[in-house]
Amino acid sequence: MTSPADSPFLLACRNRPADRVPVWFMRQAGRSLPEYRALREKHGMFDIICTPELAAEVTMQPVRRLGVDAAIFFSDIVVPLKAIGVDVELKAGVGPVINPPFRTAADLDRLRPLEPGDVPYVAETVRILLGELHVPLIGFAGAPFTLASYLVEGGPSRTYARTKALMYGEPDTWTELLSALADITSAFLRVQVEAGASAVQLFDSWAGALGPDDYQRYVLPASAEVFDGLADLGVPSIHFGVNTGELLPLMADAGADVVGVDWRVPIDVARERLGAGVAVQGNLDPAVCLSPWTAVEAKVRDILDRNARRPGHIFNLGHGVLPETDPQVLRRIVDLVHALG
Amino acid sequence: MTSPADSPFLLACRNRPADRVPVWFMRQAGRSLPEYRALREKHGMFDIICTPELAAEVTMQPVRRLGVDAAIFFSDIVVPLKAIGVDVELKAGVGPVINPPFRTAADLDRLRPLEPGDVPYVAETVRILLGELHVPLIGFAGAPFTLASYLVEGGPSRTYARTKALMYGEPDTWTELLSALADITSAFLRVQVEAGASAVQLFDSWAGALGPDDYQRYVLPASAEVFDGLADLGVPSIHFGVNTGELLPLMADAGADVVGVDWRVPIDVARERLGAGVAVQGNLDPAVCLSPWTAVEAKVRDILDRNARRPGHIFNLGHGVLPETDPQVLRRIVDLVHALG
Repeated sequence: MTSPADSPFLLACRNRPADRVPVWFMRQAGRSLPEYRALREKHGMFDIICTPELAAEVTMQPVRRLGVDAAIFFSDIVVPLKAIGVDVELKAGVGPVINPPFRTAADLDRLRPLEPGDVPYVAETVRILLGELHVPLIGFAGAPFTLASYLVEGGPSRTYARTKALMYGEPDTWTELLSALADITSAFLRVQVEAGASAVQLFDSWAGALGPDDYQRYVLPASAEVFDGLADLGVPSIHFGVNTGELLPLMADAGADVVGVDWRVPIDVARERLGAGVAVQGNLDPAVCLSPWTAVEAKVRDILDRNARRPGHIFNLGHGVLPETDPQVLRRIVDLVHALG
Repeated sequence: MTSPADSPFLLACRNRPADRVPVWFMRQAGRSLPEYRALREKHGMFDIICTPELAAEVTMQPVRRLGVDAAIFFSDIVVPLKAIGVDVELKAGVGPVINPPFRTAADLDRLRPLEPGDVPYVAETVRILLGELHVPLIGFAGAPFTLASYLVEGGPSRTYARTKALMYGEPDTWTELLSALADITSAFLRVQVEAGASAVQLFDSWAGALGPDDYQRYVLPASAEVFDGLADLGVPSIHFGVNTGELLPLMADAGADVVGVDWRVPIDVARERLGAGVAVQGNLDPAVCLSPWTAVEAKVRDILDRNARRPGHIFNLGHGVLPETDPQVLRRIVDLVHALG
């Protein structure tokens, strides 16, 4: 058993040389795995998340099958909201639905701080995992902007028009909303780290809907609050979103040790934008995993070549595993990265 | 009546100084206008497109109401495909649906060159418009990659996974498909220009799903074929897509005079990436138009300030007008740009 601090994943998070390039996959636990689908036939999503044995089992599945260098705590982006009493439903084929949505200052009263007692299953899941895992566990949470977008839109969106209307139109309400969400997110991650998670990843999946000025003004302060709130815990942090080519340096400025990059920005370009002090995670297009293996292999090699063996690279996809992905392809990617990196 | 060559829009396309910053809006004709919605209650989309009086009326509606500096030929991205016999349906709330989708080399037989006689309504619509318009008319077409994505996915997609699987897995079939689509697109734009359109815009709306290497290898050659095929006509060309921050110089290399930019890249950054010889179109976030006017005004001013009165700027949105947009806001934007620029 590797001591976590010496694991390739944690060394890469710290931008230090490791004996191989670590690799894991966003959404590695989930619908691409038959053993996950079998479990989902019997249990709802929130049932799994709130039942420590099931959540731990689902978190372990990809570690066993794929040989990845890190596990990520199985949860959903809206879990901390549901835990403090926000009415959230996970609609199949749609995503999280919040009814009624958040639209005015009065809706701020629907949020309250998250206490560890609101999510007793989280620490328990982490404890089970610590007994089984031989790789580091990454804590999981959605970032304030992305959470706010679900609250304000009432569900997934293509344009974030209502979110932006609130942001531009009622900046004070917006700031309060994001600050409240930062507290909730920070508390949710703290529970995971205090129970034993070795790193955290903040998913600001939809922040790339904003240009850099708006990101800096309306989003970065709240994401920085999340990282600041965890600083005393001493674990490395990863900050991720899609379509964030213009936001990469700002996402590092928010306080992350590692910035996740989608496939639109070549990884060497991303590293230039981020500067030498920041580690990088990515950036294989998940759609490539549905292509013939020769194409997958060429892309994996290209990413490793572009990074030119610089320390501080965690191999990952540029977004989550697509449900229709063959897990054997993921396994071959892990083996290839380990062989080459 | 302004002579078209001296119009602010065409001067800006040529990167030459004009006495004001020209402005128009992608999807300016469409569901944001009550007069359009009234017409759509009586007529299907393809009915309007194929009936010259109706297509011309819809093209004119925003010119009358908004005071924009250019009209854009009203059509749909799949019209040339339908015109050569591809079975395309426009499903309300979904978009274009192609059944069965294109998946193999054999599907190439379902495409044939587009002849002017396939789209008799196009030249007739343009002729009607020339009699009424006092601003330049922009020809409209979808680019080969974006058209291919509809054909291969069978409709809109979030991941373009099947498109990419064909691209990576059967590069010869892919090249033939894109080349055939380039011919069709070029022919469709030629009909519009020969009938009197003063410029063209090639919509590669979804090209931003690719990184720069893949764009350069699998997409750029076909888009360049489109522009090359129109070179003898001597009209300026605009090349647009969303999420294209990393692709901007390549989109210019394809042969466009103007590159359209979404709001994720500040316009001054976009101009740096494009170089001094290329004009730029954009880049107000369409979602901003649903925010209070003070926010809209600040954003419009910011874009004009960032461009610092350099010639070769066509003010536009960074993507199409959202259906829920109040046309009065669009009118105020036009007036503000004209007053400031």
